[in-house]
Amino acid sequence: MNPVRDMKKENKESNKSRFSNGVKKSTLKLVSGGVAAPTGFLASGLHCGVKAKSKKKDLSLIYSETLCNAVGVFTTNKVQASCVVINKEHLKGGKGQAIIANSGNANCMTGKKGFADSHAMAKTAGEALGVSEEHVCVASTGVIGQPLQIGLIVNAIPALAEGLSTAGSTDAALGILTTDRTIKEVAAEIVIGGKKVRIGAIAKGAGMIHPQMGHATMLCFVTTDAAVAPKALRAALDEAVGQSFNMITIDGDMSTNDMVLLLGNGMAGNKTITKGSKEFIVFSNALAELFLILAKLMVRDAEGATKFVEISVGGAKTSADAQKVARSIASSNLVKCALFGSDPNWGRIAAAAGYSGAYVDPWKMKIYIGKELVLKNGGGVSKSPASLDRIFAKKDIHITVDLGVGKSGASAYTCDLSTSYVEKNSAYRT
Amino acid sequence: MNPVRDMKKENKESNKSRFSNGVKKSTLKLVSGGVAAPTGFLASGLHCGVKAKSKKKDLSLIYSETLCNAVGVFTTNKVQASCVVINKEHLKGGKGQAIIANSGNANCMTGKKGFADSHAMAKTAGEALGVSEEHVCVASTGVIGQPLQIGLIVNAIPALAEGLSTAGSTDAALGILTTDRTIKEVAAEIVIGGKKVRIGAIAKGAGMIHPQMGHATMLCFVTTDAAVAPKALRAALDEAVGQSFNMITIDGDMSTNDMVLLLGNGMAGNKTITKGSKEFIVFSNALAELFLILAKLMVRDAEGATKFVEISVGGAKTSADAQKVARSIASSNLVKCALFGSDPNWGRIAAAAGYSGAYVDPWKMKIYIGKELVLKNGGGVSKSPASLDRIFAKKDIHITVDLGVGKSGASAYTCDLSTSYVEKNSAYRT
Repeated sequence: MNPVRDMKKENKESNKSRFSNGVKKSTLKLVSGGVAAPTGFLASGLHCGVKAKSKKKDLSLIYSETLCNAVGVFTTNKVQASCVVINKEHLKGGKGQAIIANSGNANCMTGKKGFADSHAMAKTAGEALGVSEEHVCVASTGVIGQPLQIGLIVNAIPALAEGLSTAGSTDAALGILTTDRTIKEVAAEIVIGGKKVRIGAIAKGAGMIHPQMGHATMLCFVTTDAAVAPKALRAALDEAVGQSFNMITIDGDMSTNDMVLLLGNGMAGNKTITKGSKEFIVFSNALAELFLILAKLMVRDAEGATKFVEISVGGAKTSADAQKVARSIASSNLVKCALFGSDPNWGRIAAAAGYSGAYVDPWKMKIYIGKELVLKNGGGVSKSPASLDRIFAKKDIHITVDLGVGKSGASAYTCDLSTSYVEKNSAYRT
Repeated sequence: MNPVRDMKKENKESNKSRFSNGVKKSTLKLVSGGVAAPTGFLASGLHCGVKAKSKKKDLSLIYSETLCNAVGVFTTNKVQASCVVINKEHLKGGKGQAIIANSGNANCMTGKKGFADSHAMAKTAGEALGVSEEHVCVASTGVIGQPLQIGLIVNAIPALAEGLSTAGSTDAALGILTTDRTIKEVAAEIVIGGKKVRIGAIAKGAGMIHPQMGHATMLCFVTTDAAVAPKALRAALDEAVGQSFNMITIDGDMSTNDMVLLLGNGMAGNKTITKGSKEFIVFSNALAELFLILAKLMVRDAEGATKFVEISVGGAKTSADAQKVARSIASSNLVKCALFGSDPNWGRIAAAAGYSGAYVDPWKMKIYIGKELVLKNGGGVSKSPASLDRIFAKKDIHITVDLGVGKSGASAYTCDLSTSYVEKNSAYRT
């Protein structure tokens, strides 16, 4: 699988959507190198032993040669891992230079030791890199409630720092995976005021994923050599997250550890991007597109998923209403079970639209599966069972809901709910 | 299985809960006869053919010899079946005398024909019973989006009316089942001002069940011979639903057809119960207890469920907070998968409490599984894996969360999420 190539193809296809999802038509030039594609960024990843049962990588490092403007978006869960709490503290100054992350253990609900361990990760990484602790962000992902084997991590940090390179992004992307089957890595080059500027990102997430009110819900680390003013960086991140990670759902559960971190070192030499400028729009659209690629990769990699489902909602009174309907359908266990079984039970889609909280008039709503109209005028459109079965049997399914009461739209992305998802999640710890 | 006897035993046990769920300790005298236990009520049920693939009963009738005060609670889904819309219209006058219900087809999203069919059900039943159409309530449950075979129903109504008897409640309870494995039928006798008064109820529901902001989410038909003033009847119904059906969840999906209907014919001869009186409290507590019995039966009968789970939350700042936490845990797919797999992953319980929207301080929260404390002071309590596995392997699991920040409590009831649930719901229509 070549995720980047596949997603390029898909981006082109999804532009054919009946409704726009707010992301502009893709003109992005994708490049290799992931988080190390932007000038001045290095990355590495290795196996330190937190993943005790395998030799898979479980520790990652991202480093900028110069101090960056840094912003983050974090889970809104009241139960937050120590890394989330510490990063919020570190980012109050708006600066950062490195990110260290482990997989295999979320270091959450681990008491005071958990906080000491997260601090030790940041401090030790800072010492190895010659960076002060508050300029290092920390992330952990994996099982909740188990003490972190901090000794393994601390001992491995010198080798991790030693291993930093411009070719290290893939290792870093591997080092943050948990139940993911594929890495999530992407980078693009755009032109800002005549200067070539790059944005790179790695992400992880295949379960315990659910968007929640403008906040992130998985790990994503983003680097850019663009010079971006702090407020513009904040605004670009929030907008991009809102259009991408907040519009996917896998299982409706919101994690304790989720975060998106964005470091901008300005080494591309462009005139600093300020909020509201033409350059800001170019930058934030590119960021949103990259995030949407990663978000879709997460859904495609969803635990136990056999199908990828795009839900486009149009004709809504407001954007918020369109998002509610799209997310309600994307989150419905019954819709997701029907998708798994290729059962053309479109009534469940209508029901999920109805309980979304948005303004819905069942007499004006139309539902399409692929290009086939299945509901209008408050009732089903007569179809042969065979033709409906054929549509629902596809691996990529596009559900379109035209609410018929306004002009706003939104898209959400989800997967089916399979017996395999239940099996995986009924024995995650064991 | 004798649900009533089992639930009596369980009621006694659940009184041992660490936190009260608001329902007073049971002193209810349960009686047989279901909806026909109260004086003046008759019921019947038969197979008319809407369930085409079996000979199971699919049409039910409940009738009072005299006109009743009548109230209902309905789904808040914006996509509502025609029966819901019509009942709201009929109940504007506050009176009713009969309920006709079919299973096998929800008659929802069936266009104008759907409304005509629901009207035909009410009208034909009214003619057979000598009751005006607006005093007949209608209900349908089953698959959405398929035209109702109204001819089968209309043709069967004379026999259905003919079959009405004081022994007909069980047939009526059978006639409203869809994927349910057991009937849900209960009745009790209480004393109001020296008069013996009865309340009877039948219900159905084993999937597409999720509580939603003070509104009902399945079918439940309730009869009483108590004389209850209209406002008192309304208040008693709302309070009882809030403590019972609104605190259970099976799959998080809210139906288009759900309703609770309550008919009171006053034939017990008690002095009319008015809101706020001592008699009102006795009556509404009894109603709440009966509803909780039915609600628990629904959870025990949940599609594919292998476990019954009670979640008691205490130490909350407000009752609303306690309900949020209890329902968030009860609704978490990841918690429910862990329960299915008997995987002692209590971190997921803490995470679900954290994203509930309630005030939660992770350092003050305690979590118990059965009597075993597993979380305190922000971290796990050291336990042998064998002892944790033993607790999670039980069929009846009691999770207690002490938020440690206040004095309010609430209980919710749920089941596990099994591979069998997914299998059933991936091929419901076929």
